Amino acid sequence: AQTTRIAVTPGDGIGPEVVAEAVRCLEILRTRHNLALEWSRFPWPSHAWHEEHGECWPQDALEQLKAYDAILLGALGDPGPIHDTDRYLLPDSLSLAPLLDMRKGFDQWVCERPARLLPGARQYLRDDRAKDIDMLVIRENSEGEYVSQGGRLRQGTPDEVATQMEVFTGRATERIIRYGFEQARKRAGERVQDGRTRSFQTLDGTTCESQVCLITKRNALRYWGDMYTEVFEDISQEYPDVATHHELVDAACMKFVSCPWAFDVVVASNLQGDILTDLAAVISGGMGVAPSCNLNPTNPDLPSMFEPTHGSAPDIAGQGIADPTAMLFTTARMLEWLGRKDPLLSQAGQELFDAVAAELAAKGKEQRSTREIGDAICKRLGA
Amino acid sequence: AQTTRIAVTPGDGIGPEVVAEAVRCLEILRTRHNLALEWSRFPWPSHAWHEEHGECWPQDALEQLKAYDAILLGALGDPGPIHDTDRYLLPDSLSLAPLLDMRKGFDQWVCERPARLLPGARQYLRDDRAKDIDMLVIRENSEGEYVSQGGRLRQGTPDEVATQMEVFTGRATERIIRYGFEQARKRAGERVQDGRTRSFQTLDGTTCESQVCLITKRNALRYWGDMYTEVFEDISQEYPDVATHHELVDAACMKFVSCPWAFDVVVASNLQGDILTDLAAVISGGMGVAPSCNLNPTNPDLPSMFEPTHGSAPDIAGQGIADPTAMLFTTARMLEWLGRKDPLLSQAGQELFDAVAAELAAKGKEQRSTREIGDAICKRLGA
Ligand SMILES: CC(C)[C@H](C(=O)O)[C@@H](O)C(=O)O
Ligand SMILES: CC(C)[C@H](C(=O)O)[C@@H](O)C(=O)O
Repeated sequence: AQTTRIAVTPGDGIGPEVVAEAVRCLEILRTRHNLALEWSRFPWPSHAWHEEHGECWPQDALEQLKAYDAILLGALGDPGPIHDTDRYLLPDSLSLAPLLDMRKGFDQWVCERPARLLPGARQYLRDDRAKDIDMLVIRENSEGEYVSQGGRLRQGTPDEVATQMEVFTGRATERIIRYGFEQARKRAGERVQDGRTRSFQTLDGTTCESQVCLITKRNALRYWGDMYTEVFEDISQEYPDVATHHELVDAACMKFVSCPWAFDVVVASNLQGDILTDLAAVISGGMGVAPSCNLNPTNPDLPSMFEPTHGSAPDIAGQGIADPTAMLFTTARMLEWLGRKDPLLSQAGQELFDAVAAELAAKGKEQRSTREIGDAICKRLGA
Repeated sequence: AQTTRIAVTPGDGIGPEVVAEAVRCLEILRTRHNLALEWSRFPWPSHAWHEEHGECWPQDALEQLKAYDAILLGALGDPGPIHDTDRYLLPDSLSLAPLLDMRKGFDQWVCERPARLLPGARQYLRDDRAKDIDMLVIRENSEGEYVSQGGRLRQGTPDEVATQMEVFTGRATERIIRYGFEQARKRAGERVQDGRTRSFQTLDGTTCESQVCLITKRNALRYWGDMYTEVFEDISQEYPDVATHHELVDAACMKFVSCPWAFDVVVASNLQGDILTDLAAVISGGMGVAPSCNLNPTNPDLPSMFEPTHGSAPDIAGQGIADPTAMLFTTARMLEWLGRKDPLLSQAGQELFDAVAAELAAKGKEQRSTREIGDAICKRLGA
C-alpha cells in the first residue's frame, strides 16, 4: 500500500503530553504490523509559535498540511495560567482559529462524535439513566451558525446593534443528512456482525433497529428549520430500513439526560451539534474519553482532522497527569478512518480501541500519570 | 389594595387539567386571606379556537390581555394524536406563535427559570452530582436568535440558501445583564435571611457568596459574544459584591451535568437560554416541576406571563393523570411577582410554594391522578 502520512500537531497545554502517548502507540502498531505509516510533527498551531512569530501558524500552514492524509491534533488554547484575569479576558478566538480554519480549508464538513458509555468511564447519570448509551452525533461542520458573517454597529455605545448571520445551503444540508442515514445503516450492520442486538424507540412508541434523529429549533428558527425538515423527509424515503425522529434542540438536551438510550444517530447543525456533542460527551464518560473527528468524506486529497473534544487544560498542563484516553480513542478513530485507503490501518485502529477500552475497564481507582496509563496501553498492544 | 386581575389561558392538551388545580388553589388562597384577586378564563390561544375560527386567537387578543396584571398559561401545542404522522409533520410554529407574540407584544424581556432540586423531585444525576442544585437561569427574551429575520432563497431546490439573522442590541444586553446582577444580590440577601449559607466556586478556585455566570459562544459567534462580554465587564464593576464567571454554552451544558452546584445566576441569550433552561429543568427534577416566568420588569402596565416549562403532552391529555406540580409552582411564582403591587399576594405565593414543595417531599411512590395531587395540596393550604 501507498504510505499513509499523518501530520501530528500537539498544540498547547496538555496537548503535547497526550500526543506523546498517541505517538508511542502508533510506533508499536507500525512495527508489529509493518504498517505503511509515517508522521511528521509540527510545532504549530500553538501559542509558543505565536509568541515567537506573532501568529498561530505560518501563512502556508494549510498548504503544508494538505500533503498529509490526516491531522492528529492535541489541543489548542491559551496554555497560560488561567488565574490571570487579564489573560482570561483575552478572546480565545485567536488560539482556536486554526481549528476552524482547518475545518473550512479542508472542507471537513462532517464532525463525528461518538458517545458510548464504556465500562470504567466516569458516570454522571444515575444507573437507571446511564444504560445503553451508544450514539453517534453528526455535526454539520461547514456552515450554519459558524459562517462568521455579521458585525457590530455603533460598537461600544448603548445604541449598539450586533448581528450574526446564520447561512444554511441545500447542498450542505443534503450531504450531512445523507451521511447520517449512511452511518445509521453502517452501525446497524456492525451490530448485526458483532451479534449485538439493539433496538431504539421511535416517536410512535414502536422500536427500530436503527434510527436517525434530526435536530432543529424549527419552532423558533423557522427558515433553516423548515429546510432541514424537508430535506430530511425527502432523503429518508431512500432509507426505508432506517427509522426517523425529530427533536427540538432544547428537548433533545433534556432527553440526552433523561433517556439517552433512545438515540442512535443524531444529526445537528454546527452550533446545535457543538452543544449536543459536549452533552453527549459528559453523559458517556466526560471529556476524558471523547474523540472528535472532522472529516471530509468526499475529497480523498484533503486531510481529515482528529482531536480529542477536550481542551488544552492549562490548569494541569506540564504536570504529566493528563489522561491520554480521549487522545488515544481519537487516534484509534483516525486509524479506522484511514482504513478506507489501507485496510491494515483499520485493523490497527480496532486493536488500539480495544486496548484503550480494556485499560479503561480494568483501571483501578488510584490516580495514575499520563505515562503510566500510556505504558499500560502499550503493554496491551504487545510492547 | 387595588384588585389584581389574572388572565387564565388553559390552552391545549393537559393545559386545562393542570390549570384547574391552579384555579382551585387560587380560590382557597383568595378566600382564606381575603385577597383582592380576580381572574377570567380565556378559551384561547388554543387549537380548539383555531378549529372553529381559523386562527389561534382573536385579532385583538393582545389588546384584551393587556387589561390584566398577569397571564397564567397552561400549555400550548397540538393536542391531537402524536401518532398521526401527517399531523406530526405540521410545524408547531402555528400553535406556539401566541407564546412568542405575548413575549414580544408585552415586552416580556426576561425569562426567569429557577432550577432547584427539591426533596422528592425526580433525580437524573448521580447523588455526587445532584447536590446543591439551586440556580436561576435568566434568559434574554426579546431579541437575539428569535427575531425571525431571514428567509429561503430558491426554496426546495438543491441550490437553496436559508438564512436566519441574529440581532442583539446594546440596550437589551445591558438590561438583561443588569437584571442578572440584581437577582444575584437579591438571592444572596434571601439566603442570609433564611440562614442558608451557600458558597459558589469562582473561576480562580476561590469561593463567593453570589455569582453571575455569563453564557456566550464568543469563540465562534464573535460579534454579539464580544458585545455581551464587554457589557458584562462594565456592569460587573457596579456589583463588587457579586462574583463573575464566563462559560461558553457548550462547556456550560457539560458543567450543568458535571458540577451543577457551581452555578448561582446564569445569564444567557434567547436560544442559548432556551437550551440551558431545559437542561436546568431536567437536572432539577424534570419538566414535572419547572416553572417559566416571562417578565416585563420595567412597564407595570403590561402583563407578565407565567407558564410551566412543559408542553401540552398530547399523549396523556384528557386522562386526568398529568402532574400539576409545575403548574402550581408557576402559580406560586406568579403570586410572588404580583406581590410587587400587593404584598399579601407575595405571602400567598410563598404559602403555595411551601405547600407544593411539602407535598412533593411527602408523596409516596404510587401514581396519583391530577385531582388527587391537587386535593392533597389544597388540604395543605387549609381547604
Ligand atoms: C473551540 C471551538 C471554536 C470549537 C467549536 O465550537 O467548534 C469547540 O467547541 C469544538 O467543539 O470543537
Ligand atoms: C415553544 C418555543 C417557541 C419556546 C421557546 O423556544 O422559547 C419554548 O421552547 C420555551 O422554552 O418556552
